[in-house]
Amino acid sequence: MEIIRTPSMMKETSKRLLMKGRTIGFVPTMGALHEGHLYLSKCARSENDVVVASIFVNPTQFGPTEDFQQYPREFESDRQKLETASVDILFAPDVPAIYPEGFATSVEVKGLSEKLCGALRPGHFSGVATIVCKFFNMVMPTRAYFGQKDFQQALIIQKMIGDLNLNVESILCATVREGDGLAMSSRNRYLLPAEREAATVLYKTLQSASRMIETGLEPRVIMERMQAMLMAEPLITEVQYAGVYDPETLNARIATGKRNLLAVAVKIGNTRLIDNIVVGL
Amino acid sequence: MEIIRTPSMMKETSKRLLMKGRTIGFVPTMGALHEGHLYLSKCARSENDVVVASIFVNPTQFGPTEDFQQYPREFESDRQKLETASVDILFAPDVPAIYPEGFATSVEVKGLSEKLCGALRPGHFSGVATIVCKFFNMVMPTRAYFGQKDFQQALIIQKMIGDLNLNVESILCATVREGDGLAMSSRNRYLLPAEREAATVLYKTLQSASRMIETGLEPRVIMERMQAMLMAEPLITEVQYAGVYDPETLNARIATGKRNLLAVAVKIGNTRLIDNIVVGL
Repeated sequence: MEIIRTPSMMKETSKRLLMKGRTIGFVPTMGALHEGHLYLSKCARSENDVVVASIFVNPTQFGPTEDFQQYPREFESDRQKLETASVDILFAPDVPAIYPEGFATSVEVKGLSEKLCGALRPGHFSGVATIVCKFFNMVMPTRAYFGQKDFQQALIIQKMIGDLNLNVESILCATVREGDGLAMSSRNRYLLPAEREAATVLYKTLQSASRMIETGLEPRVIMERMQAMLMAEPLITEVQYAGVYDPETLNARIATGKRNLLAVAVKIGNTRLIDNIVVGL
Repeated sequence: MEIIRTPSMMKETSKRLLMKGRTIGFVPTMGALHEGHLYLSKCARSENDVVVASIFVNPTQFGPTEDFQQYPREFESDRQKLETASVDILFAPDVPAIYPEGFATSVEVKGLSEKLCGALRPGHFSGVATIVCKFFNMVMPTRAYFGQKDFQQALIIQKMIGDLNLNVESILCATVREGDGLAMSSRNRYLLPAEREAATVLYKTLQSASRMIETGLEPRVIMERMQAMLMAEPLITEVQYAGVYDPETLNARIATGKRNLLAVAVKIGNTRLIDNIVVGL
């Protein structure tokens, strides 16, 4: 596996590959890799000639009170995991290479960016859209792979790709879960043992809500029950949202005969966790 | 000259050219072509294998009280001019192809976009940055050509290219002027004969200010004299700005031993005109 540290070297490498007619599959990450990331790499591996993964903890998508400083960085173990996953190129630039002094440009996807997580993390999705746009321009991927756990992120990126006419196909890959249903996340390692146990309530709530939709309960009632089920877990300190949403607009909605997004965001202690499933049709 | 009307056809055409190793020179325009545009085409012709010009009157860069509706549209005469200028491809999409229903994404270059014209036309440069980013992704040019008359626009686009890691080189081409010094502009045709005569005061003011810099006058004094010179022309109804600026930051500044941007923006009747020159070193 080749390791590339600079935008210019990444661009040169990708241009050379594209001129030879190679397809490039891209897996952007913030490191602290888990099975979810490796599944994205596997999907990329099966559909492209060359697989590029990136590791970059993007400061602009963290709020001032969020966990940018403490976010886990473990380059050597990440490198080994990507090597084992047959990734060809690891692109791991440093912050000054990506945000040189005087950096002033941002990409914003209005509407979708203000819903759900966006309402709680102002500026987060602008930070995400901007960095993903930059990485697309450096890596020039044929296809880019995103996990469903970050459903809203994937939706916003897909919208940006269409609106800005970017030359990449975004591919949504299934959420990978622990044996007890907890969605893989780099932030799971923040959880104390009792919190880790309590965290299983997120997926249980989603599954329970899925059954409620089948029985024809009203979304308002489903939302209340999801909320109650989460609040019944003593270690959950805050339910940020829980409900049934349109998977295209992220608006809360009546759930009849269509695909529905069931999504939750909570805090357990100081750790923020999200999860979702899409049901129907 | 080939005429392309859809983003998908433009992309396919450019991809095919790039895979053959061709360089693409791009001249984005809003039509109503004049000698300034044709000079950009000439520069593009001399440096690239293939020249693409676009015509698209971009609604998002016009303010609600500006001249979007009345902006001159004269496709057939523009087409002939580009044909004569040996342009290979004319890309002329319609508005719904560029801004389909639900379009929600914008590109913003902070700082530079709020100076000079940006202070008077809120949202204008975000509209410009967004459409140029989109066209870059559709045309995939090796080089893109912009006129110095729109100095601030060119500076913002160059900043966007760097910040978003876009794969294009932007090239600034000299302002083309009428015999009496008036900078070529599609909006010159709005001027009544007396206004057209009065409009020569813009370039005269810039030249005069250039001489004042050489004599070592203070920028504050130069600015006041520029202002006075413009206001002395009875048909000028408003001086929006006139002064000496840093050509990199667009901040007003002391002008000693460096490149200086002299720039003016006025209204003559209802017509807004801008001009600038860069002097020193």
